[in-house]
Amino acid sequence: MILATARGPTARDTEARRCLLSAGLLFVSTQCQNARLMAGTLYIVATPIGNLEDITQRALRVLREVDVVACEDTRHTQRLLNHFAIKTKTVSYHEHNERERTEELCRLLESGKNIALVSDAGMPLVSDPGFRVVNAAIERDFPVVAIPGAAAFVTALVVSGMPADQFLFAGFLPSRTNARRAKLETLREIPTTLIFYEAPHRILDTLSDIVALLGDRPVVVARELTKFYEEFLRGTAEQVRLQLAARPSVKGEITLLIGKGAPAVATTSVEEAVHELEEAGIPRMDAIKQVARERGLSKRDVYKQVSG
Amino acid sequence: MILATARGPTARDTEARRCLLSAGLLFVSTQCQNARLMAGTLYIVATPIGNLEDITQRALRVLREVDVVACEDTRHTQRLLNHFAIKTKTVSYHEHNERERTEELCRLLESGKNIALVSDAGMPLVSDPGFRVVNAAIERDFPVVAIPGAAAFVTALVVSGMPADQFLFAGFLPSRTNARRAKLETLREIPTTLIFYEAPHRILDTLSDIVALLGDRPVVVARELTKFYEEFLRGTAEQVRLQLAARPSVKGEITLLIGKGAPAVATTSVEEAVHELEEAGIPRMDAIKQVARERGLSKRDVYKQVSG
Repeated sequence: MILATARGPTARDTEARRCLLSAGLLFVSTQCQNARLMAGTLYIVATPIGNLEDITQRALRVLREVDVVACEDTRHTQRLLNHFAIKTKTVSYHEHNERERTEELCRLLESGKNIALVSDAGMPLVSDPGFRVVNAAIERDFPVVAIPGAAAFVTALVVSGMPADQFLFAGFLPSRTNARRAKLETLREIPTTLIFYEAPHRILDTLSDIVALLGDRPVVVARELTKFYEEFLRGTAEQVRLQLAARPSVKGEITLLIGKGAPAVATTSVEEAVHELEEAGIPRMDAIKQVARERGLSKRDVYKQVSG
Repeated sequence: MILATARGPTARDTEARRCLLSAGLLFVSTQCQNARLMAGTLYIVATPIGNLEDITQRALRVLREVDVVACEDTRHTQRLLNHFAIKTKTVSYHEHNERERTEELCRLLESGKNIALVSDAGMPLVSDPGFRVVNAAIERDFPVVAIPGAAAFVTALVVSGMPADQFLFAGFLPSRTNARRAKLETLREIPTTLIFYEAPHRILDTLSDIVALLGDRPVVVARELTKFYEEFLRGTAEQVRLQLAARPSVKGEITLLIGKGAPAVATTSVEEAVHELEEAGIPRMDAIKQVARERGLSKRDVYKQVSG
């Protein structure tokens, strides 16, 4: 089934006309100014991820002009709207009411109302709810228009120093240990930069898992992106883990990037490598296992060298 | 080597202070207003991908306040700057002079000048030049700050209707046929949404390759994103190919999305499927080969059914 965007052009023409208009390139008639009132459009609107200046002119206009803003958390979004003196009505949608809300929102679109869909931060749908609403709108042939803007993973990627021409975004890592490890295992052979979101209280465990399962690869931990305490930590997974472990606590949302698995050039002896890990608090047999994996040796060989 | 962002906080503090300031939450002293003059910061600034309204407040401020805007194409970026009455000096950097330009830009940062790095459209570094400049700045410990905004692949993804929680972005597909096919082959087993950029004059060949190498998967072709003629075509690779092939020409930059490989439910007989492909101009033996692959049958079996 090919879903042509039958009603799309109306809304999009209006968008484009406004753009040309704002550039002084189009004379606009009353008729075409009214076009946007004819069909209900679902706008997917990117909002700031930490710095209120990171919002586009079009996002502000759309949030102001639509009939309803559908938010992940109305209190959170209300603060954004208040800051920009936007009075538009809000409704909540989230994981737990998305099914019912989808029907309500589609009825609004059907009746010609325009809706802006936002998440708490960044681009909706990318590790955020909204998928069901957008797909319902597509299936029912309502025009759907994305208003591009901030997304944390892209922001982290371009400052990471890692290749940005190819990457795999894998969203939030599972919170349960076994599920997280299984997920990392499935990504071991992917030959691109890997990007994840991770909670601050799990980052140390996750970095340990990376060392154990993927090897001591280059990683970047990006914290508090675009905020006052924005920070990028770069090094191997183990180096960054040790650096974070030395802190009393780790706070803020984290974007974690893992570099392509290039075999690290060994600058220390096998014995030294095991000793370093032990000093970092890793049990001797785990340290031996890890060094064996990193160096492509058998555990037995490493054990012999350490004990010899 | 862990590259701590030694000089980062200065610039970032300034950013954050401005944000708080604009929110009326910070009283700013003269001293802290001068802080941004102390160190050279490299800003990676996202610019619109087709609609001039798709630029953030922070991007406009940074483009206005930096000493130099480093552009992929100065004439292209000059139009953007003119539109917003920004007078900042521009310099060009591109694939062919990036090495020399990197040294010049680092000397500017060293001398305390602030630089905004932009590409022709969207977020620099994502399928755009800039990687060398950013990595040189990171290695030499200059503060690097991303100003998030529009990126075509994210814009296409959220309107595509395909899962946006996990995806692989693979940049531009190679222009040479064999290289393109080899690239698609390597991505066959990746169990996520795949995203590419493709030139309009190659999209038909690429869709044929997808059908042949990955099977007749769901695809979305997004054209002219955020522009007047923005269009999304959804269907299987073959359906979308036939739809585009029926046009006199295909224009505009394309973002191509490929869905996870789910075996399509066959709604036509093997004979009908071959006949349909033949009518679409595919030679009989190629059509048989393709249907065999799609249905998990041997070529011999399909041949028998068609000839029987």
